[in-house]
Order: sequence, then structure tokens, then C-alpha cells
Amino acid sequence: MTTTLPSPELIASFVEIVGSANALTAEADKARYLVESRGLYRGTTPMVLRPGSVDEVSRIMKLASATRTAIVPQGGNTGHVAGQIPREGKADIVLSLERLNRMRDVDPVGNVIVADAGCILADIQKAADDHNRLFPLSLGSEGSARIGGNLSTNAGGTAVLAYGNMRQLCLGLEVVLPTGEIWDGLRRLKKDNTGYDLRDLFIGAEGTLGIITGAVLKLFPKPLGHQVAFAGVGSVEHALALFEKASSLCGPALTGFELMPRLGVEFTTKHIPGVRDPLETVHPWYVLIDISTSDSAESAERMVNDLLEQGFAAGLVENAVIAANETQGKALWHMRESMSPAQKPEGGSIKHDVSVPISSIPAFMKEADAAVMKAIPGGRICSFGHMGDGNIHYNISQPVGADKQAFLDRWREINAIVHGIVLKYNGSISAEHGIGQLKRDELAEIRAPIEIELMQRIKHAFDPAGIMNPDKVLRADR
Amino acid sequence: MTTTLPSPELIASFVEIVGSANALTAEADKARYLVESRGLYRGTTPMVLRPGSVDEVSRIMKLASATRTAIVPQGGNTGHVAGQIPREGKADIVLSLERLNRMRDVDPVGNVIVADAGCILADIQKAADDHNRLFPLSLGSEGSARIGGNLSTNAGGTAVLAYGNMRQLCLGLEVVLPTGEIWDGLRRLKKDNTGYDLRDLFIGAEGTLGIITGAVLKLFPKPLGHQVAFAGVGSVEHALALFEKASSLCGPALTGFELMPRLGVEFTTKHIPGVRDPLETVHPWYVLIDISTSDSAESAERMVNDLLEQGFAAGLVENAVIAANETQGKALWHMRESMSPAQKPEGGSIKHDVSVPISSIPAFMKEADAAVMKAIPGGRICSFGHMGDGNIHYNISQPVGADKQAFLDRWREINAIVHGIVLKYNGSISAEHGIGQLKRDELAEIRAPIEIELMQRIKHAFDPAGIMNPDKVLRADR
Repeated sequence: MTTTLPSPELIASFVEIVGSANALTAEADKARYLVESRGLYRGTTPMVLRPGSVDEVSRIMKLASATRTAIVPQGGNTGHVAGQIPREGKADIVLSLERLNRMRDVDPVGNVIVADAGCILADIQKAADDHNRLFPLSLGSEGSARIGGNLSTNAGGTAVLAYGNMRQLCLGLEVVLPTGEIWDGLRRLKKDNTGYDLRDLFIGAEGTLGIITGAVLKLFPKPLGHQVAFAGVGSVEHALALFEKASSLCGPALTGFELMPRLGVEFTTKHIPGVRDPLETVHPWYVLIDISTSDSAESAERMVNDLLEQGFAAGLVENAVIAANETQGKALWHMRESMSPAQKPEGGSIKHDVSVPISSIPAFMKEADAAVMKAIPGGRICSFGHMGDGNIHYNISQPVGADKQAFLDRWREINAIVHGIVLKYNGSISAEHGIGQLKRDELAEIRAPIEIELMQRIKHAFDPAGIMNPDKVLRADR
Repeated sequence: MTTTLPSPELIASFVEIVGSANALTAEADKARYLVESRGLYRGTTPMVLRPGSVDEVSRIMKLASATRTAIVPQGGNTGHVAGQIPREGKADIVLSLERLNRMRDVDPVGNVIVADAGCILADIQKAADDHNRLFPLSLGSEGSARIGGNLSTNAGGTAVLAYGNMRQLCLGLEVVLPTGEIWDGLRRLKKDNTGYDLRDLFIGAEGTLGIITGAVLKLFPKPLGHQVAFAGVGSVEHALALFEKASSLCGPALTGFELMPRLGVEFTTKHIPGVRDPLETVHPWYVLIDISTSDSAESAERMVNDLLEQGFAAGLVENAVIAANETQGKALWHMRESMSPAQKPEGGSIKHDVSVPISSIPAFMKEADAAVMKAIPGGRICSFGHMGDGNIHYNISQPVGADKQAFLDRWREINAIVHGIVLKYNGSISAEHGIGQLKRDELAEIRAPIEIELMQRIKHAFDPAGIMNPDKVLRADR
């Protein structure tokens, strides 16, 4: 695969496929495709192609395949591991899916939406809602994230507890392969045991095996009952014990159980307009509990009351508030979703997206906290996340008054400390964000060679020329 | 890969690994490993190896790999598509996992069981139950099916509606690769986005990419409320309308919704000891409704009453009975699970395991019934199954008094008719049983060449020597 700049003739051939209005070559036009949200990675590209149809995507890949030109597919550019960013100093061409944003079919009877990969997540949620259905994937960047990227990273978010991640929310895919051939796997079936699971291989492959261009997404009936509660608890142990009660009381009606530290609540009330502390008392930890029931509004009410009552009785809940209506419920969720942006005004933040077996969360956090505070005296740990999935966004804000860049320069050093403890608890160094460029080399270090070798063989089988989002997930050179 | 008989020296080397007591070469000893349950396929083998440890499995594969000897892994030999049966007239060695039957860990706090692949499904259910947990996979052959086979075929069964199939019930795997190397993917994490989805690739691969030797299985809290109802309905359309009501009323508390025809009820009451018709009235179709609730026993009671009331009011339910206790509930399920064995005494039965989008079930069945009755005047259609998953076991018993073998000889002809209609409705020719030998050539015909090609590339990447359960799912020759 070539890393030299494509010839003017080749550039012209790519332009011809999408038309000059959709082949961006000016630096100003390309800029927004080349930096990921945290600014950790900046890429370079000779051009950004914005195809308007699956056929154009196919033609681009046929030309790329014939000329061994590297292609980087990109959705809403909201990814956190730079999987969507072209490599620095190479000649990767960016293929943006943003013009492929047609809702192909909304079928409330069959409970599916068939959507182009470039549809924005919030638009899919809205299309479902307009048909009195729920598409449950929900995450902070849903207003700009696109479904192809959500699929390519097997996105999680806040509703995984009850509905699963993207793998569980997708029935079928359409994929343009590195050769330009199109795999039509747009099936609408709940059960289909006919050969190898190609769908789940493309989901989570971060665009390294092919370009997802369309998907069949599952819809659900909208719940009749919905309750959101916010509780102050004394410790992570107590939060875990409350989760266990919630899980056995509510079963699949428990649609969210999120953990937040006092520091995070302070950051959000300080920096995010409109966010206020829902409780008058102060607690070291907080949980947000979301309950959805299908049979009646009353059953959700009964569950949330029973749970908090049991929680108070067991000494687990110190204080709590139940949202009186959907607006209050949304305000509580807004606080939770502001945990990440609220860290920005506090200076540099070194982030981790890890998971451990749920029962190990308290021990993991205790050990990680001690190690991090030893490495960074004055560091401010703001670890929050999807407790019910074992998934913690373990973030550390810089000490007050410290030098931001000097702090951020310790990113890998701190990662090594935290991930070392994660692995001790048999956890994952990337629970939901993926590998991309950010964690590629670390993955190769922590996994058994045979596992990396199997992945390399799959990569090679699907993309022998190595043109499909190279150097993401796996190193390009075998 | 050789198809000639292994030399006495090679035989001796295999025997040495497992010990002579566990290397079966006498015809009588081998017999039960060589015929699948329906008797459609009979295989031949020089020997059956029964390794007692993962290390022995690994050593067998190392030797097989070095000598290019084909190996066929087998669990409980309950599969319906002959994926577990060695080829006829070849020299495939059977590797039975039945001695690998240790429950490695039962962890009710972490909600997982780690089990050897040879554990019997019913034993896993019991181990969960002993710890006040539920392992939801449930199917007719659970008393002899082994979990490695359930994984290798991505088994479905009666609880898929609420809990999903094996892919959704498994967190991690241990696999011995064709080379004898061991992939340790025994993770216990709910979220882990670190590279390609190897787990879901091995699940459902029918032993053609490696041998599953261990798995981490998900456990669930046992429901507090459980109700089983049996209702007579006037048509498949009415059954579907009732399913839609049940689905939106009960949400994930709807743990089963099974469809049965009058003929199936007659077959079971006639042939299966102890089964009696729960209703005094006669109806063309029946549904079995299973509801499980986590919050209380009352909520399941409320749901089943509300549902039947709504069903009566809408003219969908003609008559119904609610099981008064678990024993009565089990009796209703026993009738449903006897649908398949009850067909045996009626002579030959040509079977299909298909799925279509749920909303297409009535149209599909109407069209298939007409086509089948035209092809086989007097044929007795006994189609039943998991309506909530779109999965119908579309079976046809021979006309009364017809010649059994002459009828069964029309298997492929009738398959072609039924599957043609399935494909018209964008359905699957194997919803849960898999491909094996039975549907291998048909799969290659109905799928786009690029899809078969991608599967072949995966097969070749994992098993370049072609020794791992050859000629199953895909033809061995590229």
C-alpha cells in the first residue's frame, strides 16, 4: 500500500466519482475531518470524499483497491480513539459517510428501521419516536454521531443494561468491501443460523474490514412507565449493593444504573449552565437509577419506591429524590451526561474507558485511586459511568494550578498504571470506545500473541492489500 | 487433507494421548457417535477419541495438524443437521467432548458459570438453580445436549424471546484451534470493545474453525412471578395479533410465545403418555404464553389476566386456561416440547427450521401450506414453533398409509418448495439448527457468491490445512 501522495490523475479519478463539490482538497474544507474531539490526534489527507450513494462508495473502493490507496471511513467524527482520523504524514483518503443519510424504511409493525450509515443517531431515535417506538441507543454525542460509526465501534451508552450495545440492536448490515464488492446482509430476522457471523465481525471492526453503508436496526415498544431517581450513597460498595437490589427487583425493567462521584457533581453544577445539585445534602457518591416498564406507569412507580425504601432500610441510600415528571428526569440525565464536558474547564484530563466484572468495581477503584494519587499527588479523580455494565470512565483531572501540557504528557504513563490494575481484575482496557490508534499498541502488548494473530489473519483475509483504514486496531505490518 | 485411513502408527499416537480406554475403535463402541438423531446421516470413522482435558484436546489437534488428519468435534450428538457426524467413506476422527464435563466455577455474585464444553445443558441449568439463579437456555434435548454443541450451533430454544440465543448468553470462550494452540477468551465482562469479535465467530461455526472447550455463561436472577397460559385461537393471524398485544403489554417479561396447530395437539395427546388437551373446546391453532416477572408474583398474575382479557375482548382468544401452579405450567410446556417426538409414530416427517420477519408469518404459512398440499396431497402439516422469534418448525407428516421411505425421498424436493417461499419473504432456511451437512449445498446456492467467499476466506484463515470438521457449513474444496 502506497503512502506517497496520489498522482493528479488518480485524484481526478476519485473526484470524478463523487463530483468536485464533494471532493474536498482545500485545507480549510478538510480541517474538520482531521482532528478528533479531544484533539489528541491530527491527521493528514490529500482529500475528503463525500459519496452520495452506496454505488459511489463501491466505485471509490474499486479504484482504491486497484491503485492500493488507503481509505479511512468516517461518520460523525465523534470517536474517542482516533479510529476515524487518517494517519499523520501518510496519504490516507478520508471517505465521509455524512451524505449517506437516508432513512430507507421505518417499519413499526416489523419493529425495524433500515437506515443509511450516515444517519445521525438522534434522527434515528426521532424516527422511531415518531412511530411510537423506541430505538434505545443513547449517548452524549447522539446529536452528531452517525449510526455507521456507532456500529463500527459497537457503541454502548446509557441503555446497555437493558437493551445491549450495538451488536444487540442490529439485525443486518450492508457493507462495501475493500474490493468494492457489496455484501448485502440487510436481514430483518431475529434468528438466522446460516454460517459464520459476518455481521458481528463488521460491527466493532472500526472500518478496518469494510465500510458499513446501511443497517437494519431493532425497535422496541415505548415503555408505559418511566421513573428516574437520584440517590446519595456513602461508598462505591453501597452503590454496588444497591445495584444488586435494583437488578433483582426490576430485572430487565432496570434501564439505567449510573455511578457519579461528588467531584463530578461539583464540576457539573459549577460549569454546566442549568445543572443544579438535586439534593440538599452532600454525599461521597451518587447513583442515577432509570426504570422503564411496559405494562403500566404504576409498576415503574411501585418499583422505584420499593427500591428506595429497601435501600434506606438497608442503610445503602442516604438521601434520594425521584423525578416528578419527564422534565425533571431529563435534568437528572443531563447532569450525568455532563460529567465529561464538565471536566474540560478544570484543565487537562487523562481518561480511561475500562470495564471489570461488576463485583470487582469497588476493589478496582480503591486500588486504582491509591496508585493514581501516588503518581499524581493532587490529581482529581472523577470516575463515573455505567455501573450496571461494569464500565467505568476512570478520568483524572489535573491538580489545580498544574501545567496542562505537562500533565497530559503523562497520559500513557497513567494509562499503564490504571490498565495494569484493570487487567489484574480481568477487565477490559476499552469497554466501549474501541481501539483505533490510541490503544492499538497497548492491545498488542496485553493480549496473547495467538489472539492478535487470529485478528491479523481475519484482517488479511478481508483486506489483503491493506488499504482499509490501515494501522487502526492492528498494526499494518504483519 | 488425507482421506485415506490413518496408519497403525498414527492411530497408536492418537491412542497414546487419551489412553486406550478412551480411544474407541470397535464398531459397537463407535456406533452411537456415528448416527444423528433423525437417522438421515450415518458417518464412518477409524476411531472416536474422548480426551479428558483441554491439554489432551490440544495435543490431539497438534498431531492432527502435523499429519493433516480431519477431526470432527462432537458434544451430545443431538444436532439436527449432521454437523457433528463424520463424513461417510472418509477417515474423519471423532473427538467427543463428553469427558470434558467439569463445572469450573459457579459465581452467583458475578452472575456467571464457567463450564467445560462437555457439560450437559440440564446440569448447567441445575447448577444455576442450586445457586438461586437462572440459566435460561432451554430446549427439547437439554437432558443430553452439551453446552459446547449449543455454542457451536448458536442454539436457540424456547427462551430466546426474552434472553436471546447462545450468543447473548455467553460472555467468553476457550477454544483449541486447528493448530492445537489454545485461545483463552474466558472473559467475564459485559462490555469489551477490544478488537474483532472472535467469540461470536466461533459461536455458530459448528466446529469448523476450532473446538470450543470452555465457556463463561451468563446467569440471571430467578423471576419471582411466573405464569403459563394456553389459549385456543382461530387463525395464525389472530395468534400474531395476540403476540403483538403480549409483546407491548409484557415487554421483556414475555418469556415465551409458542404457536401450535390442532394437529400437533392431537399428535401429542395420542402418542405422548400423560399429555392431555387442556381445553374442552377445539380450535384450529393454539398459543402457549409464558410470563416471568422480577418484581413480584402478583405482577405476572396481573399481566396474564390483562392479556387474556384484552385477547377475549378483541376476539382473538376463543378459550384459554392459566396454569394454577408450576406443575400445571410444566405440563403445558411438556405438550409443546412433545410436538416433535409426537410426529414420529405418525410415520415419516419432512422438516424445516425456518424464520421469516414476524409480521410475515401468516402470509408465509398460507403460501407454504398451499404449495405443500399441492405437492403432497394428503400431507399433514404440523408447523409449530417460536412465533415471537419468527421461527417456525415447518414439518410435514406423511399422508396416512403412504410409504415412509418414498415420502422421505422427497425431502429435498419439498425443502426446495418451502425454502423458496421462505426466501421470498426474506427469511432464513436455518433459524436455529445450523447448516452442517444437511443444508450446506443449499446455502451455497441461495447466498450471494461474495458471502460464501467471505466465509471461505475466514475458514481458510483459521484452518488452512482444512482438517477442522471439513465439509460442514462450507464445501471443503475452494
